[in-house]
Amino acid sequence: MTFDYTSFYRHDLPAPAMRWNGFPEFNFVGGHNDAACVPVDAFIAASESVLRREGTSLATYGLNSGPQGYRPLREFISGALNKRAGMKTGADDILVVSGSLQALDLVNAVFLEPGDTVIAEEGSYQGTLQRFIRAGVNYVGAPLDDDGIRMDALSDILDKLAADGIKPKYIYTIPTVQNPTGSVMPEERRLQMLELARKHDVPIFEDDCYADLTFDGTRPRAIHALDNDGRVIYCGSFSKTIAPALRVGFISAGWDVMSRLLAVKHDAGSGSLEQMVLAEYCTAHFDAHVANLQGVLKEKCDTIMEALNAEFGTAAEFRVPKGGIFIWVTLPDSVDTSKLAVAAAAEGVALNPGEEWTADPETGRHSMRLCFGNPTLDELRNGVAKLAEICHREFGVPVRSANVER
Amino acid sequence: MTFDYTSFYRHDLPAPAMRWNGFPEFNFVGGHNDAACVPVDAFIAASESVLRREGTSLATYGLNSGPQGYRPLREFISGALNKRAGMKTGADDILVVSGSLQALDLVNAVFLEPGDTVIAEEGSYQGTLQRFIRAGVNYVGAPLDDDGIRMDALSDILDKLAADGIKPKYIYTIPTVQNPTGSVMPEERRLQMLELARKHDVPIFEDDCYADLTFDGTRPRAIHALDNDGRVIYCGSFSKTIAPALRVGFISAGWDVMSRLLAVKHDAGSGSLEQMVLAEYCTAHFDAHVANLQGVLKEKCDTIMEALNAEFGTAAEFRVPKGGIFIWVTLPDSVDTSKLAVAAAAEGVALNPGEEWTADPETGRHSMRLCFGNPTLDELRNGVAKLAEICHREFGVPVRSANVER
Repeated sequence: MTFDYTSFYRHDLPAPAMRWNGFPEFNFVGGHNDAACVPVDAFIAASESVLRREGTSLATYGLNSGPQGYRPLREFISGALNKRAGMKTGADDILVVSGSLQALDLVNAVFLEPGDTVIAEEGSYQGTLQRFIRAGVNYVGAPLDDDGIRMDALSDILDKLAADGIKPKYIYTIPTVQNPTGSVMPEERRLQMLELARKHDVPIFEDDCYADLTFDGTRPRAIHALDNDGRVIYCGSFSKTIAPALRVGFISAGWDVMSRLLAVKHDAGSGSLEQMVLAEYCTAHFDAHVANLQGVLKEKCDTIMEALNAEFGTAAEFRVPKGGIFIWVTLPDSVDTSKLAVAAAAEGVALNPGEEWTADPETGRHSMRLCFGNPTLDELRNGVAKLAEICHREFGVPVRSANVER
Repeated sequence: MTFDYTSFYRHDLPAPAMRWNGFPEFNFVGGHNDAACVPVDAFIAASESVLRREGTSLATYGLNSGPQGYRPLREFISGALNKRAGMKTGADDILVVSGSLQALDLVNAVFLEPGDTVIAEEGSYQGTLQRFIRAGVNYVGAPLDDDGIRMDALSDILDKLAADGIKPKYIYTIPTVQNPTGSVMPEERRLQMLELARKHDVPIFEDDCYADLTFDGTRPRAIHALDNDGRVIYCGSFSKTIAPALRVGFISAGWDVMSRLLAVKHDAGSGSLEQMVLAEYCTAHFDAHVANLQGVLKEKCDTIMEALNAEFGTAAEFRVPKGGIFIWVTLPDSVDTSKLAVAAAAEGVALNPGEEWTADPETGRHSMRLCFGNPTLDELRNGVAKLAEICHREFGVPVRSANVER
């Protein structure tokens, strides 16, 4: 006899999860990273030294650092943000969180109520867009070009909202290695964005999770760094730079916002062993590690672009990513990428259909996001070839592939 | 110029957090544990072996184990539950979570809506009670005696709710080392509880976080183990057995509930390094570790009871805890422990006032929870002496202390 829970569940639960069946053979989804780049030996050394020195502090919640997270890690983060992103932030301004997803959850818990309005890029991170939907929030998609959000369009959106008497709670942006397009917003445009935010009295929520992974190793200063008003709340993560299975991200915010974030944070902190090992490792190795990772990811990006060109020819249009681990590919109007995703999944090829990555699902109908961080170079080539084959079979596109008429 | 966020915040935010100022000198709050018992050397060895063997899997979210958590850890957990608590559960029934707090959050997210009713012990974990308040849920406190919830009282509560047409969403209980009283519910009473739950068609949510820490090393089978219907959802944690700064706990539930928990879990998993090191360490050392920890905590418990008797005499009444890291002390009616907590905090003594640990705050007005896991034996003695001094000054109680008229 099995107890029937049906009548006990909330009335508004999402569909139950499916059982996990392992990773697909060709895995172009998820922010996975290059396995060979995980610094295993240095992690072992870092674990030993930090545990030997202060392992007994694991006996207390939050170590001896309080609810904002392990202080040496916050010192590293603020130092890296100052050096790499031009920010002026200190360890007291940093909140360590369990990945940038928790950064989104906490900021949203402080600001968003059902019926609120936010502005986000028209193509943006699925995890962010889904959170807006779950929060019952209206989000307005700001059009993108090769340099990120178009400022003329953002200005129009802000004007129109103001005319309608609507004040957005924030402008959410991923300006550096935009997700999913891989663009980098130039500094001049960041200043224009701040000017618009000032004019309309709106805060900015800057998500900089990929910012250390530009292929040329350079990046503009963070919007947070260019702001003098304290209107920018900033988040980042170690998921993409070090390892996604470590659930460590961070928020930089002043005490006004910080004190509110802490008041809605009910989890007794993020895993301390991970914070300790990260602090120990990153303080010594972060810059060299990401410099190497940039090169590895660039080679993977070049490889998947070559494969797309070879297999899809002119049927696949994409912006050349400036960094990161994904590429945004647009196929002809005859291809519905949500249907392609289903057909491909059945044959071991996983991809993100564009409708899940766009504020207006229709604008993503013929696009898809392909992640290239985790597959090997051969898997990238073979996976794209297999995807072209499936796409040709399902939609007659691409007609020609690698100069061979299909 | 500082941006003013006031009008952007949610209208219903809790009060902002205070800045953290370090731990108090005599810290009788929080589930901290004995620092010397953190197995530092074995953790270093476990880190090295597991990272050497499979550290590169950190490059993928969830390692290669999917959303329920690192499979070797789930294997260990299910094996330990079977061996130690008499449960029949497998790795597929285990969800690794970020401490038992996330277990509470996920179960509540699946079951509770505002206006719902739950039953909990009249004295219970503050984190649970606060979650009920935040969820807008009515909770009915079930009276306790030396063996946990009184079944005559629970029967009356269920009858009364039924007469009012109210079906509780679950009965929440900490049957093994009850928080805050430290009692252990005998197996016979567990069977009675299941019988009542069957009669009234109600699920049970069993929180077994302290169950490995009985001072005599024995424990009754879990309620989950005695149930044949699948009506018990079970959670546990490594916070108290290994180290609270590791944020790793677990839920055991069948696929019906598990698939619902996974569908409302949006965090991309718990920290994997902690899961890997725990699995490696616990598989080899868990039983010996907790056997040693039981002895260390028993000595601390004996020490704080001696200190309470010496300093407070008959003014302090307490049940002798059967295990765990806290003791529930009741003072004369003239003492308001919330006021005592404020006065004591000002002098470096932290305690949990009883009103925060009781369903009806009035029943806890004269009681307090003192945690003894983290302070040294000397700190326990000196902290209780200082507390008695402060209590005497503020409330004239205790009148006599250590045979010396104050």
